[in-house]
Amino acid sequence: MPHGGDSLLLQLFVIFVSAKLLGEVFERLSLPAVLGELLAGVLLGPGLLKLVTPSETTISIAGLGAIFLLFTVGLEVHPKELTGVGRTALVVAAAGVAVPFLLGFGFMSLRGSPSSEAVFVGAAMVATSVGITARVLGDLNALQTRAARIILGAAVFDDILGMLVLAIAAGMAAGGPIRWVQFGVLAGLALSFALFMLFVAPRVIRRVRPRVEKMSLRNAPLILALGLCLGLSVAAERIGMAAIIGAFFAGLAFAEFSPEWNLQPRVNALNEFLAPFFFFTLGAQLDLGSFSGSVLTTALVISLLAILAKVVGCGLPLLREGWPQALRVGVGMTPRGEVGMIVAAVGLNLNMVSPAAYAVVLFMTAVTTLIAPPWLRYLFRKDARAG
Amino acid sequence: MPHGGDSLLLQLFVIFVSAKLLGEVFERLSLPAVLGELLAGVLLGPGLLKLVTPSETTISIAGLGAIFLLFTVGLEVHPKELTGVGRTALVVAAAGVAVPFLLGFGFMSLRGSPSSEAVFVGAAMVATSVGITARVLGDLNALQTRAARIILGAAVFDDILGMLVLAIAAGMAAGGPIRWVQFGVLAGLALSFALFMLFVAPRVIRRVRPRVEKMSLRNAPLILALGLCLGLSVAAERIGMAAIIGAFFAGLAFAEFSPEWNLQPRVNALNEFLAPFFFFTLGAQLDLGSFSGSVLTTALVISLLAILAKVVGCGLPLLREGWPQALRVGVGMTPRGEVGMIVAAVGLNLNMVSPAAYAVVLFMTAVTTLIAPPWLRYLFRKDARAG
Repeated sequence: MPHGGDSLLLQLFVIFVSAKLLGEVFERLSLPAVLGELLAGVLLGPGLLKLVTPSETTISIAGLGAIFLLFTVGLEVHPKELTGVGRTALVVAAAGVAVPFLLGFGFMSLRGSPSSEAVFVGAAMVATSVGITARVLGDLNALQTRAARIILGAAVFDDILGMLVLAIAAGMAAGGPIRWVQFGVLAGLALSFALFMLFVAPRVIRRVRPRVEKMSLRNAPLILALGLCLGLSVAAERIGMAAIIGAFFAGLAFAEFSPEWNLQPRVNALNEFLAPFFFFTLGAQLDLGSFSGSVLTTALVISLLAILAKVVGCGLPLLREGWPQALRVGVGMTPRGEVGMIVAAVGLNLNMVSPAAYAVVLFMTAVTTLIAPPWLRYLFRKDARAG
Repeated sequence: MPHGGDSLLLQLFVIFVSAKLLGEVFERLSLPAVLGELLAGVLLGPGLLKLVTPSETTISIAGLGAIFLLFTVGLEVHPKELTGVGRTALVVAAAGVAVPFLLGFGFMSLRGSPSSEAVFVGAAMVATSVGITARVLGDLNALQTRAARIILGAAVFDDILGMLVLAIAAGMAAGGPIRWVQFGVLAGLALSFALFMLFVAPRVIRRVRPRVEKMSLRNAPLILALGLCLGLSVAAERIGMAAIIGAFFAGLAFAEFSPEWNLQPRVNALNEFLAPFFFFTLGAQLDLGSFSGSVLTTALVISLLAILAKVVGCGLPLLREGWPQALRVGVGMTPRGEVGMIVAAVGLNLNMVSPAAYAVVLFMTAVTTLIAPPWLRYLFRKDARAG
């Protein structure tokens, strides 16, 4: 409302409504809503219709949206999903992180990208957006199959490993060529941070829980969670990582308490409002002019590698369970969704990724996210008929 | 996260945590949490410790906080609360709007304020924050008494009438001296807007409801509500009113559907995050230097008038039910809370209110909000002993 809020409010209104409308259109076509929100930004943004050029404040609100999105990804990590599939899931996740990263990094390096950019493209190819897979499997009533449980279990490790890769990639933004000492320090720092948030932070929260629940402030647990989410985002930024990494680990620390404190539906209300600004801004930052001949070829190759890497990387460890099982798990790990996009945005905003490479990553994210759901439906239905 | 987000995130973190901490301290002292959040802004802001000077982005986020706060005030208006007390409540509300406005406007005019400033101070004295009263009465298990039902019923009209007064006051910001034609046009516009949102909008929503509930997008009703809230805020601003007035009327239109669509808890999650930035910013905008001798005197007189106006204005129509009943209702209508503060902020940001008058209004709001709860507890306990 204050200070020139007029045009800002109008901009927020146009972004919110257009993103949600295109999200609805995509959902009706059985496509992921996030891609519709992204498309709204591509269409209305400076690249095409030039109706909306996100202001600095809008971009800041979009950044808050990314922080709460990653906080939610952390909140949704349920170690209980590892029961019975823990070891298999870990192997699947590790291969599903290593293979895409190496393929992406290798191809971009061969193509002549600076190593920092190659690292970022590789990191974006690591991400898995298991939410999209989980929804498809839920619609098919297949969440209790062994393949589904391996996918959801692997996603637990995948999220954490992916964030470690991003933390290291973002931390190395400063130095041009890769320095191994810096790499070691960053990896150690990121790993300690992850282990602390996974094992120590929940104990601390458990210990202060009675006091939090007795606080006079209404919604004290929610406030504590939001406060820690902001605090760790600041801390992650200060030690040279991306803010979203702090938000993710804050979510991880609260995952155990989310059901009884009813955190998730309320953080989701925040996401419902803030996330459209993030996805719209992502789309608006895309320079369609980047898609010249050679960039389009790169985008197609990277997309193909991104699919192959997950299908082969995640499928191989399961070959002894038969190749249909291997294929189901591999395809289930394929969609990069919002996590891949966030990695791309971090790279762009750290000036580590050129507009062309940003376009390549968005293209890859869209392709993997679009291809996985129908493919999964086909594989699981075939299975149901066979079994 | 993007573009210089570093210092912004740190600022958001410091504001959020300090506001919530002081809110908690105030709650433990049985004082309203909003005043604690305001005090955090006074203490850490440019006036005293100079730790935080809200950036433009922070101020925009604070403005969004005010919009969703007023949206919630609208959502919480339940016409059902008028059952059995409708006529009495209307008279109480009308007198409770007219008397404070006239006293505030009259005193400020006599003191030499320009008429636009006098109008704003009067408008801020009209506001009632019934949430604070409702909480006290709830704690006392007195929500079913006739006095409580009159207070809650009068609040329904009071909110609407108060917003009309503000709409007219804000609309007249442009013209220095009061012009009666402009006044008539604005009053007609505001009244039509109010009647439309009260009687036509809910019908429209009822008609599109089946389609909204069948939408593919998750949380479609919440998204519709947030979209309309933003849209009407923009519209209100465009026709020369304050954005929050549009947000309030958007809330009013959805009040009937809030329970089944579960809107309130989820909008409250947004408030939980955004409102602290608003109250902190309000405090940070206070120039303590304004409280020179004559301003302090004015602040004390205005506070006294604000209390008298509600106690006498709302109490008089109830005198035939005995003066204890009249007093209970009058005191129950006294706290100005967040609504009074928002009116003051609108005036300051429209440059209609001088820093000194802003300080006077914040002082008046704090005094009425602090005095009412203990006074109410005393009056209702005395009543319980007597009855």
